[in-house]
Amino acid sequence: MRFEKHVFICTNQRAPGERKSCGEAHGLELVKLFKKLVKDKGLSTDVRAQKSGCLDACEFGPSLVVYPEGIFYGSVEVSDVEEIVTEHLEHNRPVQRLVIDFNKVKPTE
Amino acid sequence: MRFEKHVFICTNQRAPGERKSCGEAHGLELVKLFKKLVKDKGLSTDVRAQKSGCLDACEFGPSLVVYPEGIFYGSVEVSDVEEIVTEHLEHNRPVQRLVIDFNKVKPTE
Repeated sequence: MRFEKHVFICTNQRAPGERKSCGEAHGLELVKLFKKLVKDKGLSTDVRAQKSGCLDACEFGPSLVVYPEGIFYGSVEVSDVEEIVTEHLEHNRPVQRLVIDFNKVKPTE
Repeated sequence: MRFEKHVFICTNQRAPGERKSCGEAHGLELVKLFKKLVKDKGLSTDVRAQKSGCLDACEFGPSLVVYPEGIFYGSVEVSDVEEIVTEHLEHNRPVQRLVIDFNKVKPTE
């Protein structure tokens, strides 16, 4: 495995008038903070966090996925990033409260 | 696992004068063709192909990665896409001739 953890963070942006997108929320801020914390914690050799297009989890966004385990996180706030990096990326303990349950349809806000 | 195969195709573009990027080559064309073939073959429920930012495999680009197995492909041409979709995504047989060996440094062209 090239990376022990490879994190893809949606930064997709839609045109005005279309449904809300992760990029329109704070996708890019999440990418910047993930990259900074991965570097600051000296995890860069084994962990890569980067931007991606739409992860098909818009209704749960802002969203991201961690591979190889394929765990999707939703409604991720900037204030959640440190916990995901420390708990999941560093210590392999997924942050259950943010894991998307795709069997549950999120109520429209 | 939300997707049996999740394909991330680099479409990163650099400013003129910087080193060549996958997006500058034909990253977006690859994304379009992957999406079309996945749909045409009726694989959309289990397979997702999408664009991503830089995969840190620029010297082997145009590049993409298939998760959860974490197999990186490099020097992918538009003419290679059907083989990757049929062999790897549909029948779970990675296309070895295109798999990146990160222990090998690609000679500068």
